[in-house]
Amino acid sequence: MNCSRVLSMTHPALIDELKTLVEPGKVLTDADSLNAYGKDWTKHFAPAPVAIVFPKTTEQVQAIVRWANQHTVALVPSGGRTGLSAAAVAANGEVVVSFDYMNQILDVNLTDRTAVCQPGVVTKQLQNVAEEQGLYYPVDFASSGSSQIGGNIGTNAGGIKVIRYGMTRNWVAGMKVVTGKGDLLELNKDLIKNATGYDMRQLFIGAEGTLGFVVEATMRLDRAPKNLTAMVLGTADFDSIMPVLHAFQSKLDLTAFEFFSDKALAKVLARGDVPAPFESECPFYALLEFEATTEEVANHALETFEHCVEQGWVLDGVMSQSETQLHNLWKLREYISETISHWTPYKNDISVTVSKVPAFLKEIDAIVGEHYPDFEIVWFGHIGDGNLHLNILKPENLSKDEFFAKCATVNKWVFETVEKYNGSISAEHGVGMTKRDYLTYSRSPVEIEYMKAVKAVFDPNGIMNPGKIFAVLTGTREDAVNELSAQVRRWDQHSFSLGQSGVHRA
Amino acid sequence: MNCSRVLSMTHPALIDELKTLVEPGKVLTDADSLNAYGKDWTKHFAPAPVAIVFPKTTEQVQAIVRWANQHTVALVPSGGRTGLSAAAVAANGEVVVSFDYMNQILDVNLTDRTAVCQPGVVTKQLQNVAEEQGLYYPVDFASSGSSQIGGNIGTNAGGIKVIRYGMTRNWVAGMKVVTGKGDLLELNKDLIKNATGYDMRQLFIGAEGTLGFVVEATMRLDRAPKNLTAMVLGTADFDSIMPVLHAFQSKLDLTAFEFFSDKALAKVLARGDVPAPFESECPFYALLEFEATTEEVANHALETFEHCVEQGWVLDGVMSQSETQLHNLWKLREYISETISHWTPYKNDISVTVSKVPAFLKEIDAIVGEHYPDFEIVWFGHIGDGNLHLNILKPENLSKDEFFAKCATVNKWVFETVEKYNGSISAEHGVGMTKRDYLTYSRSPVEIEYMKAVKAVFDPNGIMNPGKIFAVLTGTREDAVNELSAQVRRWDQHSFSLGQSGVHRA
Repeated sequence: MNCSRVLSMTHPALIDELKTLVEPGKVLTDADSLNAYGKDWTKHFAPAPVAIVFPKTTEQVQAIVRWANQHTVALVPSGGRTGLSAAAVAANGEVVVSFDYMNQILDVNLTDRTAVCQPGVVTKQLQNVAEEQGLYYPVDFASSGSSQIGGNIGTNAGGIKVIRYGMTRNWVAGMKVVTGKGDLLELNKDLIKNATGYDMRQLFIGAEGTLGFVVEATMRLDRAPKNLTAMVLGTADFDSIMPVLHAFQSKLDLTAFEFFSDKALAKVLARGDVPAPFESECPFYALLEFEATTEEVANHALETFEHCVEQGWVLDGVMSQSETQLHNLWKLREYISETISHWTPYKNDISVTVSKVPAFLKEIDAIVGEHYPDFEIVWFGHIGDGNLHLNILKPENLSKDEFFAKCATVNKWVFETVEKYNGSISAEHGVGMTKRDYLTYSRSPVEIEYMKAVKAVFDPNGIMNPGKIFAVLTGTREDAVNELSAQVRRWDQHSFSLGQSGVHRA
Repeated sequence: MNCSRVLSMTHPALIDELKTLVEPGKVLTDADSLNAYGKDWTKHFAPAPVAIVFPKTTEQVQAIVRWANQHTVALVPSGGRTGLSAAAVAANGEVVVSFDYMNQILDVNLTDRTAVCQPGVVTKQLQNVAEEQGLYYPVDFASSGSSQIGGNIGTNAGGIKVIRYGMTRNWVAGMKVVTGKGDLLELNKDLIKNATGYDMRQLFIGAEGTLGFVVEATMRLDRAPKNLTAMVLGTADFDSIMPVLHAFQSKLDLTAFEFFSDKALAKVLARGDVPAPFESECPFYALLEFEATTEEVANHALETFEHCVEQGWVLDGVMSQSETQLHNLWKLREYISETISHWTPYKNDISVTVSKVPAFLKEIDAIVGEHYPDFEIVWFGHIGDGNLHLNILKPENLSKDEFFAKCATVNKWVFETVEKYNGSISAEHGVGMTKRDYLTYSRSPVEIEYMKAVKAVFDPNGIMNPGKIFAVLTGTREDAVNELSAQVRRWDQHSFSLGQSGVHRA
C-alpha cells in the first residue's frame, strides 16, 4: 500500500481533482474498496490501487482518461473481476475505473436481435433479458453470474458453447470506446456488413483494456436453442475421442463437445451429489450436446453412437431424456473445476488446432509423468475447439511452495510443447500479468513489436492498463518506488500546474 | 499514363532489379498485360501500372516489398480483379503484384475442417475442393469463378449467404501476411481459441491491401448443407417484408433472405429464360432459403407461409420441390445484376441495421422520386443482413454523361441519408478509390485519423496500395512516422507517476 499512501498524502489535490469529474461519492479510497476492486480471481498479486472511480456516463469516462493523460496516471479497467490472468489487477498504485454504475441494458431490438449494453452489464443479466424475449445470448461460462460484458469483450471470453457459437467476438455488433487518448470512437455502428476500412472494433476485443475502455456495446442475440440434449460417452482411450467428434460432427450440428478424464470424473463422483452417467469405467469421457429438434435428429445421434461402439471407440454411453438429465450430465463436466480446487491445482489454459490435440496431450502427459511420476494430472476442456485445461494436483505430502516451484519447471515444458505444436499459451483466459512473460511462446518478437506500435496509436502515453499483455518497465520494486518519488517531485515542479491549465502533455 | 512513363523511362534499372527478385519471365511490362492487370471490374480509372510482377513464394513477396521500400515504389495487389471499388486498380504508375502463380491449396484437414490456401486460389476452386471432401465453403457471390481468396480477404467479401454464415472474416482461421515493411507475420496459427493479445489478423481482413499482402490463409470449411430449399414470396408492400423475415427467423435457421422489387423481376422475366415464380403480381418479393433437413422442418416453413398469408403480409408464394426448382428460383434473384446492366445502372452498395431498412428505403425512394421522377429505381439485395443494392436505370433519352452527372447529385443525397441512418456507404464492395472521398459519411474524422496511424504502423513508407481507402498520405508521411516512433519510445520508457514495477508481489 506504499504507493497509494505516497500519492494520497503528497497529492490529495490530484484525487480531489478526480472527484470533480464524477458524481459525489463515486471515488473511493478506503482500504476495503482498494482491496476489493484491486484484484480479480487470480491471487498472485497484492492489490494496491490508490483509488477506485465509478463513472456513470461516457463523458465522465472521457474526463477520467483526459485527467489520467494530463497527470500520467495509470488506469486499470474493472468489470466483474472474475479474470484468471490478472488483467484487471491493480497492484502498482493505479486508479481503478469500475463500470459497476454503467450497468444498464439500454435497448433490445427484436428485428435486429441485438441488445445495447453498458459495459457493466453482467453476463447473466444479458442472458436473462434475451431469454425473456425468446432469444439467447450464447456465450456462457462458470463466472457468468458476475462477469461483465466489458470484461468479456476485453478478454474475448469463450466458454462451453464455442464450437457452435464462437467467442464473444462473434457477438459484438458494434461498440463505443474511449481510447487511451480520450477520444470517443463509434465502431461499426452495429452493422452486419460494413466494408469501410479497418475494423478497429476487432482490435479492442481481446485487448484487455490496454487500448481504451468499452463504454457501450451492442451485443447480438440468437434464437433460443430447441430441446438441448446431451450425451456422455465413455471412450476406449484418448485417441478414440477424435473419430467420435468427427462422426458426430458429420451427422449433427453440435452445440458443445467437451471431454474429461477418468480422474476428473472420479473426483466429481466422490462428492456424492451427482449420479454416475453409467456403470462402465472408461479412461476418457466425451460430453456432447445438440438440439434434438425432431425425433429424426435424436435417431441420427443414436445411430452415430452405435457406429462409434461398433468401431470400438466408445464403450458405453447415455443420452439425456429430460431437462433434469441434461443438467445432471452437464454437472459431470461443470463441477470439475470447483471440485479439484481442493487439491490446489496448477492450472493451464492452452490450445492447439483440434487435429493436433491427441499428440499434444500425450506429449505433455509423458513429460510430466517422466519427471514427476507422483503428480496427478487431471485433463478436461473444450476439445471440440482445441482448448485443453491442464490441471496438476498437489500431492498431499508436498508443501505449496515446493509444489509451485516444481510447477514453474513444468510451465516451461508445457509452453515449449505449446510452441512446438504452434498453439496458444492462453486459449481464453487472456495474457494479463500471469502469461505476460511467456508471450513469445505464442507470438513472435516481430509480432509483439507491431502490437506495441498499435498500442502506441491508441494509448500514446501508456496510461491504459500498463504492464498487462506486455511488460512496461523492468526493475525492482525499489526502483519503481524511487522512480515514483522522482515523478512526484517532478509534478511539484512542473506538471501539475501544466495539468491545471488544461494542456495535454504530448 | 504519365507516372508510369516517367518511372519506366527514368529507371529501367529499377525494373531490371525487380526482375532479379522473381523467376525469369515473371515481370511483365507489355501494354496488354499492363492494361489487363491494372484494372478491376470498375471502369472509372485508366489502368497505368509500370510493371506486373508474379511472385511464386513468400520470400519473393518479401523481397518485392523490401525493394519497393528501398526505392519508394507503390505496390498494388492483384487477385481476380473482380472488385467493384477500384481497390485493385493501378492508375498511377504502380507496380502490380499479381498472385496468379501462388494459387495452390496446400492442405485440407478434415478434422480441423480447414484448407490452407495460397492467396491466388480462386473462390470456386476452394468451393470445389471442399465439396469433394463432403464439406462446404459458404462464402459465395457472382464472381466466385474468378475472384481469389487473397482478394476476398482484402475486401472481407460477403455475398448471398451472410445471414447464416457471415462474411469472409468468419472463415479465416489464420493467415500469413507480409507487412508493408516486409516482415512476415503468422497471425493466429489457425486456432479457434487464442487470447494472446491483439488479433491483428482482423486488421488485415478488409484492409484492401493497404497494410500488407496476404501470402497464405487457412480457411475454415463447414459441413455441406442438406436439402437446400427456397421459397419465393410476393408481399403486399415493402413494409410486409420485415415481419415475414421475423416470422421465418423465429421458426427456421435461414441460409438466405433476399429481396427484389417488381421492377427487378419484370426485367429478369423479360429475358424469357426463367419461369415466373407464380401468376400473382406483387410490388416486392422475398427469396428465402433453408435446409429442409426433415419433413417437419418443411412443414414449419409451410405453416409460417400460411401465417404470413393470414396476416396479409404475403399474397402468393412457392417452395422448391427439387434442385432444379431451387436453382430456377435463385435465378430470379441472381440474374438481376446482369440483366439490368443493359440500362447502364448507377449502382450503390449500402447497408443499415435490418430494423431501419424500411424507413431508409422509403426515404431514398422519396428523394429520388421527387427530384428525378423519370428515373427508374431497381432495388434488390441481401435484406436479411441490411445490405441494399440501389440501382437507378438510365432513361433512354438521357446521355450517359448527363445521367452520371445527375447521379453524382443523387450520390450525395444517398450518402447523407446513409449517414442519417448510421449506415455504411459500402456494405461489401469496399472503399478503394470509388468510395474514398465519401468515407466520412460512415467513419468519423477522428476514426479515420486512427486508421491512418494504424496504416503507418504496418506501412510506414506508404507503399502499400496508396490512394485506396484514404487519399495518398501527403508530404507528412515522414512526420507521421517520426511522431509514431517517438510515441513508441515514450511508451516504452514511461515511468508512471503512480508506480509501475511489473514485479510480482506475493
